[in-house]
Amino acid sequence: MPKKIRLGILGGGGDSLIGVLHRVASFINDNYEIVGAVFNPDHEQSLDFAKEIDVPTNRIYKDFDTLIAEEMKLPENERIQVCSILTPNFLHFPMAKKLLDNGFHVICEKPMTTTYEEAKILQETLKEAGTVFAVTHTYTGYPMVRQMREMIKDGVIGKIHKVDAQYYQGWMNPIIHDKEKRGTVWRLDPKKAGISSCMGDIGVHAFNMIEFTTGLQVQSILCDFNYIYDDNVMDMDGTALIRMDKNVKGVIRASQVATGEENNLSIAIYGQKGGLKWEQENPNYLYKLNDPEPLQVYKPGHGYNSKLSLDGTKLPPGHPEGIFDAMANIYLGVAKAIRGEEYNSGEFPTMLDGVRGLNFIENTVASHKQGNIWVDMD
Amino acid sequence: MPKKIRLGILGGGGDSLIGVLHRVASFINDNYEIVGAVFNPDHEQSLDFAKEIDVPTNRIYKDFDTLIAEEMKLPENERIQVCSILTPNFLHFPMAKKLLDNGFHVICEKPMTTTYEEAKILQETLKEAGTVFAVTHTYTGYPMVRQMREMIKDGVIGKIHKVDAQYYQGWMNPIIHDKEKRGTVWRLDPKKAGISSCMGDIGVHAFNMIEFTTGLQVQSILCDFNYIYDDNVMDMDGTALIRMDKNVKGVIRASQVATGEENNLSIAIYGQKGGLKWEQENPNYLYKLNDPEPLQVYKPGHGYNSKLSLDGTKLPPGHPEGIFDAMANIYLGVAKAIRGEEYNSGEFPTMLDGVRGLNFIENTVASHKQGNIWVDMD
Amino acid sequence: MPKKIRLGILGGGGDSLIGVLHRVASFINDNYEIVGAVFNPDHEQSLDFAKEIDVPTNRIYKDFDTLIAEEMKLPENERIQVCSILTPNFLHFPMAKKLLDNGFHVICEKPMTTTYEEAKILQETLKEAGTVFAVTHTYTGYPMVRQMREMIKDGVIGKIHKVDAQYYQGWMNPIIHDKEKRGTVWRLDPKKAGISSCMGDIGVHAFNMIEFTTGLQVQSILCDFNYIYDDNVMDMDGTALIRMDKNVKGVIRASQVATGEENNLSIAIYGQKGGLKWEQENPNYLYKLNDPEPLQVYKPGHGYNSKLSLDGTKLPPGHPEGIFDAMANIYLGVAKAIRGEEYNSGEFPTMLDGVRGLNFIENTVASHKQGNIWVDMD
Amino acid sequence: MPKKIRLGILGGGGDSLIGVLHRVASFINDNYEIVGAVFNPDHEQSLDFAKEIDVPTNRIYKDFDTLIAEEMKLPENERIQVCSILTPNFLHFPMAKKLLDNGFHVICEKPMTTTYEEAKILQETLKEAGTVFAVTHTYTGYPMVRQMREMIKDGVIGKIHKVDAQYYQGWMNPIIHDKEKRGTVWRLDPKKAGISSCMGDIGVHAFNMIEFTTGLQVQSILCDFNYIYDDNVMDMDGTALIRMDKNVKGVIRASQVATGEENNLSIAIYGQKGGLKWEQENPNYLYKLNDPEPLQVYKPGHGYNSKLSLDGTKLPPGHPEGIFDAMANIYLGVAKAIRGEEYNSGEFPTMLDGVRGLNFIENTVASHKQGNIWVDMD
Repeated sequence: MPKKIRLGILGGGGDSLIGVLHRVASFINDNYEIVGAVFNPDHEQSLDFAKEIDVPTNRIYKDFDTLIAEEMKLPENERIQVCSILTPNFLHFPMAKKLLDNGFHVICEKPMTTTYEEAKILQETLKEAGTVFAVTHTYTGYPMVRQMREMIKDGVIGKIHKVDAQYYQGWMNPIIHDKEKRGTVWRLDPKKAGISSCMGDIGVHAFNMIEFTTGLQVQSILCDFNYIYDDNVMDMDGTALIRMDKNVKGVIRASQVATGEENNLSIAIYGQKGGLKWEQENPNYLYKLNDPEPLQVYKPGHGYNSKLSLDGTKLPPGHPEGIFDAMANIYLGVAKAIRGEEYNSGEFPTMLDGVRGLNFIENTVASHKQGNIWVDMD
Repeated sequence: MPKKIRLGILGGGGDSLIGVLHRVASFINDNYEIVGAVFNPDHEQSLDFAKEIDVPTNRIYKDFDTLIAEEMKLPENERIQVCSILTPNFLHFPMAKKLLDNGFHVICEKPMTTTYEEAKILQETLKEAGTVFAVTHTYTGYPMVRQMREMIKDGVIGKIHKVDAQYYQGWMNPIIHDKEKRGTVWRLDPKKAGISSCMGDIGVHAFNMIEFTTGLQVQSILCDFNYIYDDNVMDMDGTALIRMDKNVKGVIRASQVATGEENNLSIAIYGQKGGLKWEQENPNYLYKLNDPEPLQVYKPGHGYNSKLSLDGTKLPPGHPEGIFDAMANIYLGVAKAIRGEEYNSGEFPTMLDGVRGLNFIENTVASHKQGNIWVDMD
Repeated sequence: MPKKIRLGILGGGGDSLIGVLHRVASFINDNYEIVGAVFNPDHEQSLDFAKEIDVPTNRIYKDFDTLIAEEMKLPENERIQVCSILTPNFLHFPMAKKLLDNGFHVICEKPMTTTYEEAKILQETLKEAGTVFAVTHTYTGYPMVRQMREMIKDGVIGKIHKVDAQYYQGWMNPIIHDKEKRGTVWRLDPKKAGISSCMGDIGVHAFNMIEFTTGLQVQSILCDFNYIYDDNVMDMDGTALIRMDKNVKGVIRASQVATGEENNLSIAIYGQKGGLKWEQENPNYLYKLNDPEPLQVYKPGHGYNSKLSLDGTKLPPGHPEGIFDAMANIYLGVAKAIRGEEYNSGEFPTMLDGVRGLNFIENTVASHKQGNIWVDMD
Repeated sequence: MPKKIRLGILGGGGDSLIGVLHRVASFINDNYEIVGAVFNPDHEQSLDFAKEIDVPTNRIYKDFDTLIAEEMKLPENERIQVCSILTPNFLHFPMAKKLLDNGFHVICEKPMTTTYEEAKILQETLKEAGTVFAVTHTYTGYPMVRQMREMIKDGVIGKIHKVDAQYYQGWMNPIIHDKEKRGTVWRLDPKKAGISSCMGDIGVHAFNMIEFTTGLQVQSILCDFNYIYDDNVMDMDGTALIRMDKNVKGVIRASQVATGEENNLSIAIYGQKGGLKWEQENPNYLYKLNDPEPLQVYKPGHGYNSKLSLDGTKLPPGHPEGIFDAMANIYLGVAKAIRGEEYNSGEFPTMLDGVRGLNFIENTVASHKQGNIWVDMD
């Protein structure tokens, strides 16, 4: 019997970047085989793409409903076990729900849904289904992010007092500052992109990283947005003051007008005994600030790292791994969960991360719209 | 006739760090000679210190009032021309006021006064006096900070949309987390240290850097503090959302519980055409983010820098200069002003910087105390 | 007809790190399918490994000769097209030779052979075979290394005058300094590891990078080794002075006693108009030194990069890719060559790189043994 | 009696950069007062310069011989105690010799003399004179270089096996590549600049840093130069293989054609237990490589530093100091020596450093001219 998990793909065809990322990630640890897909709304294109990447075409379905219907007819040991949802955001919820209702495991791109309401419904659905559900907050897959989480859990920096996370990008700049473009692009149309651009797309990653690494939860939020132009209704930039449990305060900063920045996601956590800092664009360096000892620089693959971190490194120290490897680590964790093997809760972000992310996004909007007041997280 | 400006020093004796900084800065460009001083409240110690640093003792006065009285008796061409005020904060105002009233030029350590009210009085006094008044926001003296200011002024990054400044320190950590220490140290006693610790001591530098480099003014502030402990009444950490003129938003972050941080003051300004970033601990690097061109790294002493920047560099590229050189640049600017020579307004921070700093500090406290609401700057 | 190239694997079973690297690299661009292998000298272990990574066991052969014999019986459209040789070094030559003799394409780990003599024989064999042959000098697959090559080719830094390459490692330190270990480990036994440890294993990468990026050839070498201990006969450290064509001089430095270094391969090329610097452990940064303009930092995925560089990047700027992606780029180039598609000569290192590498290694040893004299490359 | 040491200055007038560096350094710790000088060969210009920097003109002499003659007439407690020699290189020897013969202390710019022969004569002269003599290898004054020396002395990295030092510059590039300029500039005329350009001017610094930090001596040298052009007789670039005592090998690399480099002096020392790396352009960072522990970054002013390092830092951690502060540390050490106070031998480079520097320079030339053979240091 083949050992590989039978993977279905929804979306991710053609030149889709997210498609490449997930496909490669699924291959990296020899755990998955793509057996079925709807790569594209156009069936012909879907078939062509399957041929291009050399996936058998017999289970390339014309649409999602057909995929469900046909796969359910197959014996369980042939049926798709887990589906990766890489479609436009508004399809995440209905697809995920139907997959769970039919007992499939799910790997869902972020944002998990377009509203918090949907997220909570999905959470209930998952309770019934009892399957494995992962949301691909990819950055949690980096070995040094995992190391950060484990060190904090082990009390290495002591009681936390301050958190600071940033996600700055500049690539949308030419769109934002062009009146015609900003009026027509789907990303700045709330009907298509959801209620928030900057916080919804990237701020939520910073939020997730804080909760992932500290193990604490954000309790309330005060947020201010910048729309930059009066004719623009989506946030291009925002800063959220946050309060976490145990009397911790912090700040989440996100911007899509940070000209020249690429994916400058960085996170700093300061505790009573030390600090930890990490930057996404140099993911293989974790800085441990000590007072009164010298700063230390942790790197992947060394024996001083935690098991969770080491499990996410394939080669010895000095061989840089990147974003594909981070996503692969998440797929590896999901594979363990699907097979019922033991795994660390840090190996992949779950439904709870998805739900909290949507809660965060809606609260930032609410806080801003009500005049920058404190809004409580559920 | 000696060319050097006759400098008086108030405070800065013994092991005073600020004393060394100002003294060295005054020497660096051959512009000043210390002719009189009250280095210490104890006259014997003052005299001893004068001998130690080889300053003639005949004009080491027993107290500030005597200094004024005796100096005013001297002919103008022998009298102290400018006094550097390096005393504890609460003495800045009365000393500065009396100096101005008597027609002296003043170089005043930061914070200029302990209240905004005093600052405004001082501002009026200066109008009458018509002398030169500098507040030593030292960081503005770095060549690459000056370059940043000039590039922004020249429109290199276009219309600004986002500012982000941080000042994180950790050295007070052992004090803050020790109940006995935090209850007794003068820095955490509002009667001695003023109404704010974190924002008053370091946040105000971040604020000043934003206004100095952008040429824009902060218009309103929403601030949240963290006192860390219930028995502590001084802010140890705070984040201020800011709104500037021309529809610019940003954030100022300051912390004294950022364990392991030294003087991590950093500033990022994003405009429509590019971004500029600078960090105090690596002061000789200015990062210019360009989209779609490669990042550029500006360094001091190169011909591509502005005159204002080049005037602050003494050696060719590749010879690192530091904080003493930055302060020396401020003293150089003050010397030009005292001599009536032409100088660039960026050469030293003025009364206005001092007044706005106090306005900022009081507004952060007001915003926090009133429940994190927006408070307007004057 | 499946589109994927039929790949055979020799070695790389079990915990082999090089095995993971090649296997993942072959998957990344959807171009290869593993159809046959001898993963391990022990057939049972080979079969077990095949099951573990879910490769069909029907073409897992008991040894290399059987693989050749059986594959040759298959119709050409089922037969393995290309074999990756990941075995111990001494097997590279006989395997590569027999594969070429039978018309297979070959991807060979480095060093291509154990002697220059063998390398030249292989070169002749390839001429007869006319197949595709790649040597996996993996670092040439990094997008910014490719960019460096293209920029130099385009004359961006002008006529080259100075090259400087370094490969420093420290991981062997505990072995080297332990008398018993260094006397027994295969890596320090010339019979098993070849005539050179430091230059043969890592110095040759630095050599290859210089020739790859500059397009120039090293003409003569003067080398000094350090064996560290009298009872050790393998070089642990060495520096080679080099002279290239067109009056260029430089230096290649390699060390296995650089305690604490991981894979610190770095290269600097200085031309009349500018300089270019790159470091393997931060592979996504290419530094362009300009005089009198500011330093520029090139990063992958931006439109300013060359086609060769962009072809090696899968995601937009700011998504770090690493060593697996670099190797995948080499596999991608080989796939194009096998399919007869157009490709850039920089897409994979060839037989010539392998031959020159062996020539270099033997010359460093010859130079050292003859008293650090100049030795000419062929 | 004034406490300050009476300092004489030879050279360093007008726009002299070295003049500023020494003058500021002498001021920084309140130890010196300039009482006499020959700033310039032209007496009028010398007087003008004295007025410009506000030094009394009564002891501004018309030439060096007059300075000696007149100062010797003064009572000892008024006479210049120490002279800083900042003149063109060929004057260093005769001035230093005559100063020593007359019992003055000397601070001499580098290179100490133009030949090794002169250096040895000076060494003998000093033995007779018994005064204090410092050569300003300025980089040894940086706190983190001093820390490196102390850590190595304390055995922190164990027995040394490998040293690697580099000094790369690019500023001469426009001169070198212009046939007319390179034929006329004094720096490329051996009669005026000495026998070596690149090794003599900058390579010798790298050499000095190795001996200063390791406490070991270079024993033999094999060097290759690059003149770049046939019509050029001065080395523009060179690499020296070195062998030190205790079986240590290493390499010194220097270049004046490293386009775009500023003062890229860097040094790496690897021992059995760890490595230490430092770069002149970021002088406040000392990297300690550990295997198997994380890299550590040492910074000035922290309690974990040695006394020698801490004595060279004036402010708490996080206040960057630079090249002026480094030179000031050397002047501070010289002041202690002149006053007969206790001092650490690392506080200033001595005659021995000067002598060894000249020995090194002549040996690099000898090795190159004789066909890149090993030449022994004395």
